[in-house]
Amino acid sequence: MESLPTIVEASSLIRQGRLSPVDLVEHCLQQIDAHDGRLHAWVRIDAAGARREARRQHDLLRSGTDLGPLQGIPLGVKDIIDVAGWPTEAGSPLLAGRVAAEDAAVVGRLRNGGAVLLGKTVTTEFAFLDPASTRNPWNPEHTPGGSSSGSAAAVAAGMCLGALGSQTGGSIIRPASYCGVAGLKATRGRIEMRGVVPVSRSLDHVGPIARCVGDLRLLLGTIGGWSSGSEAAYCTPPKLMVIREYFLDRCDEAVREATLSALECLQQAGAELISSTLPESFRNVHSMHRCIMAVEAAEAHFDSFARQPDAYSQHIGALLEEGLTTFAVDYSLSLRHQQLFREQIGQMLGEDGVAVMPATMTPAPRGLESTGDPSFNSPWTYAGVPAVTIPCGMAPDGLPCGLQLIAPEGRDELLIEVARWCEEKLEFQDKPPLI
Amino acid sequence: MESLPTIVEASSLIRQGRLSPVDLVEHCLQQIDAHDGRLHAWVRIDAAGARREARRQHDLLRSGTDLGPLQGIPLGVKDIIDVAGWPTEAGSPLLAGRVAAEDAAVVGRLRNGGAVLLGKTVTTEFAFLDPASTRNPWNPEHTPGGSSSGSAAAVAAGMCLGALGSQTGGSIIRPASYCGVAGLKATRGRIEMRGVVPVSRSLDHVGPIARCVGDLRLLLGTIGGWSSGSEAAYCTPPKLMVIREYFLDRCDEAVREATLSALECLQQAGAELISSTLPESFRNVHSMHRCIMAVEAAEAHFDSFARQPDAYSQHIGALLEEGLTTFAVDYSLSLRHQQLFREQIGQMLGEDGVAVMPATMTPAPRGLESTGDPSFNSPWTYAGVPAVTIPCGMAPDGLPCGLQLIAPEGRDELLIEVARWCEEKLEFQDKPPLI
Repeated sequence: MESLPTIVEASSLIRQGRLSPVDLVEHCLQQIDAHDGRLHAWVRIDAAGARREARRQHDLLRSGTDLGPLQGIPLGVKDIIDVAGWPTEAGSPLLAGRVAAEDAAVVGRLRNGGAVLLGKTVTTEFAFLDPASTRNPWNPEHTPGGSSSGSAAAVAAGMCLGALGSQTGGSIIRPASYCGVAGLKATRGRIEMRGVVPVSRSLDHVGPIARCVGDLRLLLGTIGGWSSGSEAAYCTPPKLMVIREYFLDRCDEAVREATLSALECLQQAGAELISSTLPESFRNVHSMHRCIMAVEAAEAHFDSFARQPDAYSQHIGALLEEGLTTFAVDYSLSLRHQQLFREQIGQMLGEDGVAVMPATMTPAPRGLESTGDPSFNSPWTYAGVPAVTIPCGMAPDGLPCGLQLIAPEGRDELLIEVARWCEEKLEFQDKPPLI
Repeated sequence: MESLPTIVEASSLIRQGRLSPVDLVEHCLQQIDAHDGRLHAWVRIDAAGARREARRQHDLLRSGTDLGPLQGIPLGVKDIIDVAGWPTEAGSPLLAGRVAAEDAAVVGRLRNGGAVLLGKTVTTEFAFLDPASTRNPWNPEHTPGGSSSGSAAAVAAGMCLGALGSQTGGSIIRPASYCGVAGLKATRGRIEMRGVVPVSRSLDHVGPIARCVGDLRLLLGTIGGWSSGSEAAYCTPPKLMVIREYFLDRCDEAVREATLSALECLQQAGAELISSTLPESFRNVHSMHRCIMAVEAAEAHFDSFARQPDAYSQHIGALLEEGLTTFAVDYSLSLRHQQLFREQIGQMLGEDGVAVMPATMTPAPRGLESTGDPSFNSPWTYAGVPAVTIPCGMAPDGLPCGLQLIAPEGRDELLIEVARWCEEKLEFQDKPPLI
């Protein structure tokens, strides 16, 4: 194998008999061997299990059993998501060695689809802001972002074709963007959360990270269903609502340049750019989001934090402290604000509006002391609308920038088709050096 | 008019040309004149407006315009529900004279259905536990219950054919039961809350009080829609799940006697009685219900209570204080418990289980210092399942007892048909003395 295929490509080659799942998994394991000592994307690898499963899928395909487009595709699973028989440690010593009895709902769906699970990818502690040891494949001196650090880095480094992440603030879109790959946070509720360690039940989402939008489409189809029918309509150049306020105002020069030249490229390809403004309620989104996250995390960790407060790192510990001392009326007010914002974003986007903005404020920051700033992502997590990031250009320091697109609640298909159109026009070809 | 007809009877007589809405409204106004000085069921009466509307509906019917079964029917509206042009004072000096600009959603539906609105009925202060001055028509030394005190008393005293009430704990079912009439709290969300002064947004319900289940059916049809089709199936004797635990264990002797003899009567008429047990999560329902109510009420009254805490009476003031000092994790825990209880009650009832229990712990208590105990009703408000009360017998002291029936979420039609079957077999004929 000269270079690692995308899921779309691999799926087609496998069906044509031109690629065996056995070779594909071997290639991924070699990449892991070659690079993970430096990148730390994985918590655990089940090489023997993956080889066995790849062989089984190879044989099933030979015998005519087609389980769908993920059959034989090697994937990673963020270590807050249960895989039966493997520990789910969520980056915390508190859960060390806690073996999951059952697959999470999403993992069960992947397994039924014939996917080959390579292992668990690194998460920050309880999927919050305290950095893990994972490094960015584009430059190991930089963070890969978080909290789905390992999933994004593993996909970017070609160690797997796709991976599951999760997002409560910006934990799928941010690392995917920092690592120059594509990520999807679907409409809240579309992908089942059973078997995933909770951060905040009103905000948690599970979603896929992969190298292109076509791959996200296949992953969503398996873990969250796919309603086909209306996609054809979106092959024409889309209208894109550009949100300058907050996003383009706050991002750094490198991200602004990358975003503006991506928008210009899309416009030249025929996209219509409409400038759009945020609803009044956007102003309080970040504080209200923080309030809900703190309270619900504090509730989820109540007993454990009371027993072993010192077993929590700085950021998550402070979040839990904050949640424990929050008054109920403030939380209740936040829940109502979340509902209001959701309605106002619904009005802003209308039936089929797709808005675009940078995926992050800066490219991946230098150092591993921080996983970067989720503030360009958390509003959409809070609203529950689908969001996707696609790589759109390179910053002068050689790190990728992501373009974030959002669509109305439930319009995941629309979002994916529009993102696919944009991705094709943007032709982002760069790859991490040394990989 | 010899005796006041039910809505079902009046509706039919009006359509046959044998009763005019003009005479009907006149009869109600006479009853109000004769008894309200003693009973205090009404906050305000719009006699001129009601006469004008009755005449208009009379003329419309003559000219062939049929607006449905409530056309020309005189009704009362609890004074926490907006009627355009009338004050909504919610029993509080804080809202004195505050005239509503628009009809509440339910009032708009009644108006479109040609109902004649007589006036506003007494509510306890902000629909909570501080008693109002309304008296029980069966014995003015006793409370009519609350918080829909005026609506229940007015219907029982024949001052109107039906009335709107609301329930956050037991504010429809309890006063209806204490006053020997029928009341319905439909599935949460079925009847729109727009234009109703909130107590607690996760618990509030609006619903009708009337003299028989057939009348509740017509009222629900107008304010909450009616999906017909499956009713025929319920003309056969129903299966009834009897909940002995908590309810039959805690009620007083009079209520127990009335309930057991009602159940015996229903069994003899062919109903199958099945004994049923409550889910584990029932144990914490009352404290969790209180927590949610306190927090959400405190949020709704936040500014007003901060400015004028002394303008609130004892019970509502204590509730708001409690809500303000509740921690968010406890409220969050309660919201999750509410969801769990809702699911477990759904499992307990299954597809079409109807459970029966006493509507209240005792008949209407003596004195006006308390509106009685809502604890037999609040679990079903909390779960959001539909509940109905029908009068089922008399206590030795001459006060009526109610039988409460509940059904699965969304099965309001089933509940009403089963309640109608029970009502017919129980043949409760008593009327308040002196009315």
